[in-house]
Amino acid sequence: MRKIGLEDLRNIAVGASVLGAGGGGDPYIGRLMASQAIEEYGPVTLLDPLEVPDDALIIPSAMMGSPTVLVEKIPNGKEIIGAFRALEKHLGKKAYATMAAEEGGINSMVPLMVAATLGIPIVDCDGMGRAFPEIQMVTMTIGGISATPMSIADEKGNILLLETIDNLWTEKFSRSITVDMGGSAMIALYPMSGAQLKKWTVHGSVSQAEKIGLAIRSARKQKRNPIEAVLKEVRGFILFKGKIVDVYRRVVKGFARGRTIIDGFDEFEGKRLTIEFQNENLVAIDEVRGVIASVPDLICILEMETGEPITTEGLKYGYRVYVLGLPCPELWRTPEGLKLVGPKYFGYNVEYKPIEKIYGGELEK
Amino acid sequence: MRKIGLEDLRNIAVGASVLGAGGGGDPYIGRLMASQAIEEYGPVTLLDPLEVPDDALIIPSAMMGSPTVLVEKIPNGKEIIGAFRALEKHLGKKAYATMAAEEGGINSMVPLMVAATLGIPIVDCDGMGRAFPEIQMVTMTIGGISATPMSIADEKGNILLLETIDNLWTEKFSRSITVDMGGSAMIALYPMSGAQLKKWTVHGSVSQAEKIGLAIRSARKQKRNPIEAVLKEVRGFILFKGKIVDVYRRVVKGFARGRTIIDGFDEFEGKRLTIEFQNENLVAIDEVRGVIASVPDLICILEMETGEPITTEGLKYGYRVYVLGLPCPELWRTPEGLKLVGPKYFGYNVEYKPIEKIYGGELEK
Repeated sequence: MRKIGLEDLRNIAVGASVLGAGGGGDPYIGRLMASQAIEEYGPVTLLDPLEVPDDALIIPSAMMGSPTVLVEKIPNGKEIIGAFRALEKHLGKKAYATMAAEEGGINSMVPLMVAATLGIPIVDCDGMGRAFPEIQMVTMTIGGISATPMSIADEKGNILLLETIDNLWTEKFSRSITVDMGGSAMIALYPMSGAQLKKWTVHGSVSQAEKIGLAIRSARKQKRNPIEAVLKEVRGFILFKGKIVDVYRRVVKGFARGRTIIDGFDEFEGKRLTIEFQNENLVAIDEVRGVIASVPDLICILEMETGEPITTEGLKYGYRVYVLGLPCPELWRTPEGLKLVGPKYFGYNVEYKPIEKIYGGELEK
Repeated sequence: MRKIGLEDLRNIAVGASVLGAGGGGDPYIGRLMASQAIEEYGPVTLLDPLEVPDDALIIPSAMMGSPTVLVEKIPNGKEIIGAFRALEKHLGKKAYATMAAEEGGINSMVPLMVAATLGIPIVDCDGMGRAFPEIQMVTMTIGGISATPMSIADEKGNILLLETIDNLWTEKFSRSITVDMGGSAMIALYPMSGAQLKKWTVHGSVSQAEKIGLAIRSARKQKRNPIEAVLKEVRGFILFKGKIVDVYRRVVKGFARGRTIIDGFDEFEGKRLTIEFQNENLVAIDEVRGVIASVPDLICILEMETGEPITTEGLKYGYRVYVLGLPCPELWRTPEGLKLVGPKYFGYNVEYKPIEKIYGGELEK
């Protein structure tokens, strides 16, 4: 158990954007809201998953929909509290703590805001160890934990409660509702026991985000190479280094789909990498070697000089970037995990190969 | 207070289809389900609105979506009970009785099925005195009664609860959810007190449907003119008599929109009437005189020989029909009522004129 203050918040926001693997949105608005809540109510308690009693009720809290919408449709902060309270009421029980559904830019911040406002702890875990675009794509689904009862709320005051027969139906209904709500909504879902949390979540993801964020921010201040700093903290591989020469993006069913093309320089001179994405980066394709990394492993694009993670909606011609490959949590590498978030689910007819297998031992840290 | 048995059910189904004014769907599936429930659990108690205690909780029950979908996607009967129970649980109180949201073909039957199955009475009233296509189009909205908390359920077992800021938002969310559920869903909504029911519903609509249905069915058996029989029971006017020569229909946002053209014969020889509809018949337009009837008054198309009411999805070339105009309940003629369901709401730039004003005293009964 420890406390999370304003400075920690900044580190978590940057690190979670790296783990977002292109998705999860720019945490700007989320960080402002969480900062304000911490300023008003004080630091947030971060619990290790093993500190949570087995019979405690944990309710993850998150934003759903397009992060880009948030910039113009700013949450008032009451909707997520309303959603959280509505679900507690429906369950007839108060939550012992909240947690992140995903470790992406915005959704690393939302549960911190909830925790600060309600005076409850946040648990050092999440349901992905990264970001993914759909509701059912969490490790809890592998464990048979239902996404519902779930609540969904907008800034106008509308609140809906869902009880669905499986987590794919939760995704379907909540996606339509989010569109009706204007493209973004606040949600509380996957209510679970402490025992379930210990078994079916990704442990330590808040700490990991913080560690990555701290490494990047320290390197910047000390004029060191931020990419090297990141790779000292997490196991990962440099997949590519180059300049973005093309970005193709279209919105399909509320998702940002597209690809970006990067032309290499230095040791990657003369090579070209294509990254395809659906909110998150899905596959990295080398012109000669084919797919060199794929979901569920993390494909992260970082600006070369500052180490700033670039989300898929932030990709622009001319950016000089590093592309990193990070191994995903082990739960995603099970047959059940790959069925939920493997390359085939996203329409790629390739077998998943763990990134450290592709990169042998040579680049491994 | 009286009991409704199987024979009464048949009369109500036919009469409610007349009051459906082209909408409300073919009651076939609904009548089968209600019949089965009455056979299994016994006759249903019909209460006069004035017999309901002021502090009693009344929950209307209904089908939402396209009635045509029901023919292939047959309800299993559990979804409406599930929806009803979920709303009771959410409210923390058992319903004293149920009632019809609208007096259309299917939705006259759904609450009878619920009442029989749960062993509670049905109240002799509804929220329209006819059928209308949207959730907020009930007399309860005029009285400021919220459509929510509302529950919505499908045959697969999904149940959603809505708490919206107004009844237009209820319509918006539940329409999307109904589409996701496959085009039809079962709903429980507008929970209200006995005192609210007395003031803001249309009284006597079940009895009126029964009276009309009995008149038509008796006339058929006795080879009398069913149209004359109907006009003996209710105040109404013959707007037209002729043959359907064209039907134009398209589905827009889950609604059946279109128009039918009828060429007159007998006393209407040489004349042509166009009826435009959105699920329900909205306006009747005479080639020379212009709009001769409009919402909220009822425009009903009945087959000439049998008096069988024809819903808008049942309109076909060649049918010989009577078009009747029936005055709507007085609540719809208030400024608030006309704002909700007047011709302007449906996009017609005409002032509403009560049908008995248009038809003077000459045809009035």
